Amino acid sequence: MSTANDTNKTNNHPNRTNGTDDTDTTRTPVTVLGLGAMGRALAGAFLRAGHPTTVWNRTPGRADELVERGAVRADSVAEAVAASPLVIVCVLDYAASHAILEPVGAQLSGRVLVNLTSDTPERSRAAAAWAAGHGIDYLDGSIMVPTPVIGQPAATILYSGSREAFETYGPTLKALGDQAPYLGADHGMAAVHDLALLGFFYSAMAGLMHAFALAGAEGIKAKEFAPFTETIVGILPAIAADMAEDLDRGVFSGDQDNIVMEAAGIAHIIEAADDRGINTEVLSAVKGLADRTIAAGHGNAGFVSVIEEMRKASAKG
Amino acid sequence: MSTANDTNKTNNHPNRTNGTDDTDTTRTPVTVLGLGAMGRALAGAFLRAGHPTTVWNRTPGRADELVERGAVRADSVAEAVAASPLVIVCVLDYAASHAILEPVGAQLSGRVLVNLTSDTPERSRAAAAWAAGHGIDYLDGSIMVPTPVIGQPAATILYSGSREAFETYGPTLKALGDQAPYLGADHGMAAVHDLALLGFFYSAMAGLMHAFALAGAEGIKAKEFAPFTETIVGILPAIAADMAEDLDRGVFSGDQDNIVMEAAGIAHIIEAADDRGINTEVLSAVKGLADRTIAAGHGNAGFVSVIEEMRKASAKG
Repeated sequence: MSTANDTNKTNNHPNRTNGTDDTDTTRTPVTVLGLGAMGRALAGAFLRAGHPTTVWNRTPGRADELVERGAVRADSVAEAVAASPLVIVCVLDYAASHAILEPVGAQLSGRVLVNLTSDTPERSRAAAAWAAGHGIDYLDGSIMVPTPVIGQPAATILYSGSREAFETYGPTLKALGDQAPYLGADHGMAAVHDLALLGFFYSAMAGLMHAFALAGAEGIKAKEFAPFTETIVGILPAIAADMAEDLDRGVFSGDQDNIVMEAAGIAHIIEAADDRGINTEVLSAVKGLADRTIAAGHGNAGFVSVIEEMRKASAKG
Repeated sequence: MSTANDTNKTNNHPNRTNGTDDTDTTRTPVTVLGLGAMGRALAGAFLRAGHPTTVWNRTPGRADELVERGAVRADSVAEAVAASPLVIVCVLDYAASHAILEPVGAQLSGRVLVNLTSDTPERSRAAAAWAAGHGIDYLDGSIMVPTPVIGQPAATILYSGSREAFETYGPTLKALGDQAPYLGADHGMAAVHDLALLGFFYSAMAGLMHAFALAGAEGIKAKEFAPFTETIVGILPAIAADMAEDLDRGVFSGDQDNIVMEAAGIAHIIEAADDRGINTEVLSAVKGLADRTIAAGHGNAGFVSVIEEMRKASAKG
């Protein structure tokens, strides 16, 4: 580590959390491994909250701005891990995080590792097994907001895995986001929620882009169109809550909507988009689910009945 | 018409709007053609607001509950049209509305016709040309909310076409929904906004169903999962506003997000869904757009750069 004197002083108290004294040296020292856009946002939030923050990245230059703001640049992963009782890693995927962590398993022993890398539940569980084998207290986390929101009260990060680690460092982790639900001891739960929610997010994002493209083809400026999207956004929470009730009851009544009408509506969108040379692949996939739901005899049900088709593997894998 | 005495009394004042007297007979008489779930909701909202309401449906039984609540059942479309200066039609599509309206073009002359049927902008414009040929003051509208929301302050209905009709009957139409923006004289504008927003809506809906399916495969109850979807919903308006700015400027910087990272994230969702036998066709279509955006050399840009691929016709049309 380059200049780690201050950090080393607090290094002997791995479980020390924020006391009543607000000076930097009594705040939990933290290490952040991986300084992509998200890793930098995480380290920046810890710095703002006054935590002694050690950072490491394969390309050391990524740390420059953080070092100017008071972070300590570690020259190696081992040095970075040694600096803090709480080690955060956030990289592209678990193959990358494993490549970084595997050589320092022994140094991580007795520390808390929080992996905020996004990947599948299976890989979170495999990482948890590896961590358990090295005596590492392991917490898996999923960041649900884009980088500019990190450190703000609205920022949501989901956690699962070691309850003890969450209870000890939960207050420290709040520097990254105030919304920090703990989803249970199964390390895969944060990733399950993450992937399910991200699937919703990217479908919605593709829908937004399609909407801008279609409106744009008629000369409507994106800025004029954008506020109308709030009409749709505004009805989604109530719809999700209604869907949830139907799904848990297993009854898709169609009292309030009808999938035949909805499929006709989707057909109109596809027709209008095709006429304007706008791509319709996402909507065609949605219509395929609706059409197969109707063909399976659920034409009187609501949109929620596509769950049966969602529960079937894709024909083209 | 069966029992239209009261309605006939006001029928001689086709442009009479709400005065200071709040008794029923001074409120604008309205006719609703088509009594599917949405047509019934529309007629019900007019009845609640105290409008003399005449209804017609090909299957007359659909009117029973409305008649109990005070609506007048017309025996024919011509009779229904004759009853009110303001005629609303809401059926499956414009082929259906044209079949209903074409034979009564002469009776509609001099009245205001509001077509709340959902279809393409082209068909709205064709209907406007037909209406103009018959001296019908024509307003096109698109209902943006599900039936239970009709008549509530939050209900949004978009209008375009005859400005005079909108100015005369805007206050009457507010009985259906308080959010009633007028989008200009081009009759197709309401449908353009409608289809663009519905495309967003159905993509988001498919995303929600995928999320429930994936969480459900891990034993998470829909009701427990649903509140987490609000995390995603909550960030969409700001993202749409940011996208709009980038789109109008034509600059897709990727400062705040990166499509390579995002495509990796989508790949994780697809992998986890495939492992659980969950359908991935919608997300695969989204990933296809992202992959082609990256292949076109925009890997450093943000998700908004998929607009270029959105502006290309689908390979499989």
